[in-house]
Amino acid sequence: MASGYNPPNFILDAAKEELDKVVSNQYAPTKGNPRLKNAIAAAYSPFFGKQIDPEAEVVITSGANEGMLSAFMGFVEAGDEVIIFEPFFDQYISNIEMPGGTIRYVPLHPPKDGAKRKTKASEWSIDFDELEKTFNEKTRMITTSHNPVGKVLSREELERIADLCIKYNTIIVSDEVYDRLYYVPFTRIATLSPKVAERTLTVGSVGKNFYATGWRVGYLIGPEHLIKYAAAAHTRICYSSVAPLQAAAAIGFEQADKLGFWDQSRQEMRGKIERFCEVFDELDIPYTDPDGGYFVLVNMASVKIPEDYPFPEYIASRPRDFKLFWFLAMEVGVGTIPPTEFYTDTNAHIGEDWIRFSICKPDGDLEEAKKRLRGLQKYIVR
Amino acid sequence: MASGYNPPNFILDAAKEELDKVVSNQYAPTKGNPRLKNAIAAAYSPFFGKQIDPEAEVVITSGANEGMLSAFMGFVEAGDEVIIFEPFFDQYISNIEMPGGTIRYVPLHPPKDGAKRKTKASEWSIDFDELEKTFNEKTRMITTSHNPVGKVLSREELERIADLCIKYNTIIVSDEVYDRLYYVPFTRIATLSPKVAERTLTVGSVGKNFYATGWRVGYLIGPEHLIKYAAAAHTRICYSSVAPLQAAAAIGFEQADKLGFWDQSRQEMRGKIERFCEVFDELDIPYTDPDGGYFVLVNMASVKIPEDYPFPEYIASRPRDFKLFWFLAMEVGVGTIPPTEFYTDTNAHIGEDWIRFSICKPDGDLEEAKKRLRGLQKYIVR
Repeated sequence: MASGYNPPNFILDAAKEELDKVVSNQYAPTKGNPRLKNAIAAAYSPFFGKQIDPEAEVVITSGANEGMLSAFMGFVEAGDEVIIFEPFFDQYISNIEMPGGTIRYVPLHPPKDGAKRKTKASEWSIDFDELEKTFNEKTRMITTSHNPVGKVLSREELERIADLCIKYNTIIVSDEVYDRLYYVPFTRIATLSPKVAERTLTVGSVGKNFYATGWRVGYLIGPEHLIKYAAAAHTRICYSSVAPLQAAAAIGFEQADKLGFWDQSRQEMRGKIERFCEVFDELDIPYTDPDGGYFVLVNMASVKIPEDYPFPEYIASRPRDFKLFWFLAMEVGVGTIPPTEFYTDTNAHIGEDWIRFSICKPDGDLEEAKKRLRGLQKYIVR
Repeated sequence: MASGYNPPNFILDAAKEELDKVVSNQYAPTKGNPRLKNAIAAAYSPFFGKQIDPEAEVVITSGANEGMLSAFMGFVEAGDEVIIFEPFFDQYISNIEMPGGTIRYVPLHPPKDGAKRKTKASEWSIDFDELEKTFNEKTRMITTSHNPVGKVLSREELERIADLCIKYNTIIVSDEVYDRLYYVPFTRIATLSPKVAERTLTVGSVGKNFYATGWRVGYLIGPEHLIKYAAAAHTRICYSSVAPLQAAAAIGFEQADKLGFWDQSRQEMRGKIERFCEVFDELDIPYTDPDGGYFVLVNMASVKIPEDYPFPEYIASRPRDFKLFWFLAMEVGVGTIPPTEFYTDTNAHIGEDWIRFSICKPDGDLEEAKKRLRGLQKYIVR
């Protein structure tokens, strides 16, 4: 999952300066560096259409991952159910199971003709009857996210999910770690109504926002009555989060708007997606154009792997996407991510013709990958 | 717990250089930066009298705290018992309870005349009958540590503990985060015998070793059959740990010996303890001279707080050490740590005449604190 991309100089410089301060090398407050909480509250208040209280409504975590874990640890008890959509971010599973939660899976359904034509991430759809049947009186939490498909849930979809959450008194964990990289209108579920806001924890990531996934700085935003439990869990899990990089992230949020970083970042990433996907247009291999983030799902149903192609045992025993992953690495030298890793066995068939590319790479690497991918031509059979 | 002390320049410089590398800003491997694991294996192999395998026998964690949690999460199941000594590091409690463990407490007994004379940390003693009665077939783990008393368990004490662990098939978590700051001979429990080593996880801390508690880099060292479970738990908890500071810590371990950092650090801290404690000798207030670390426990039984002294409610309701803590802050302006915070209610009486000072501060701050503490003279009644 390494991105091959570096954080912008303004936060790297800030990090170096913070390392020279005594206070920035010692324990940060357990709930987070106050300057970072202020900067996040200031940056997000306009998006949430309300003044966020940095002390009561923000907590800094050791990456978004530990933020999710803190949310689950704060609320899930043995026997509680948590609904997640498939494909899912794989860390959710253990993070829900650690406090004894039971996971209920609801698949996103890919566009029916996704093997035949280029599609949009919005065409991956929720069957709301299926979703409603999954809710019950034990449904403690649900996660909403546009990862890993690159789908940004529409306002209407979010409203239907939120209505169910209100009906079943369910807490929403909205995983918005790619919240600065969206290419279609993006609604934050917490902004739908005060009744939704009061049950929503929004998860954010300094690592994703600033291309610094190794920094392990994330955050949760939400109403005090939820944040306090997540913050207590966070303190028990990690005590506090990395101090000098929290301080640098504060400066990052303070400066990013002024420097035009968010717009530049979005344009740059969107440009990479469009240029990279040209190779699939050339090859007439259909893909799902992402609404957000920096991953592209490509449908490789038309790529025929020779019948006698040799696979190591741990690949041979997995669904077709693992074989595609191996075949692409061996035959064209391009690294990909097999999406059934993000599915349960029951629903793995949904993802097995797809393969996932990360386009968060330097342009030179992407051009080289395109060149190599043209070598697939001879394996395409229609 | 802020130390007011800064990391040495050689690791600060290393951190700044790492921030300029793409790879150091992105996810580190979940089990840790290979260079850091190598550096730790090289630094600790001489202490353990064997070649430590950096890949199989070391895992990097998000601070020693998350290392402890990973150890508990890796082995403790609902109904298992874990023995800890009182006073304890307070994070142990929730970290054991999160996976459903039950804690069994065994107090360290202070020297009987600790209110009358200066004592040594080694005089805080374990009642081995009491300890043995606490072991049973459900005893899954025990933690051994010289924190917060500053006691370094003697070889004989460790042998008696280890014998019980072998008898009851108990895993030892040896919290050795102050392993570079000891002022008496220091035995690592894992070195007692192969039978002890095979059941021991040793916890270390870059934060404590290099005065960088805000960096959140810790490590576990142990046999592969234990490390693998702790490493799996760590991956589920935090995914990976802070990348640029892991890389800097690697350089720290590589250079520290050559630069004489460990010796200098120990001499410096021991000097601070001795100079700071002069004020208690002057005032004839007895204290426990620590065998390791940078905290001093002082017995303030002779300090009489005026009967009508006003305390806020949250102080008034706590044991006498909290009142001493408040009184010292208000009357002489010195910050301390009330040790009953590290005791259960049952055993809090043991700690209530003591108060804990951190001496990991610049010399100027310590001299100022001594000056202020002389103001206690008028409250001493014998």
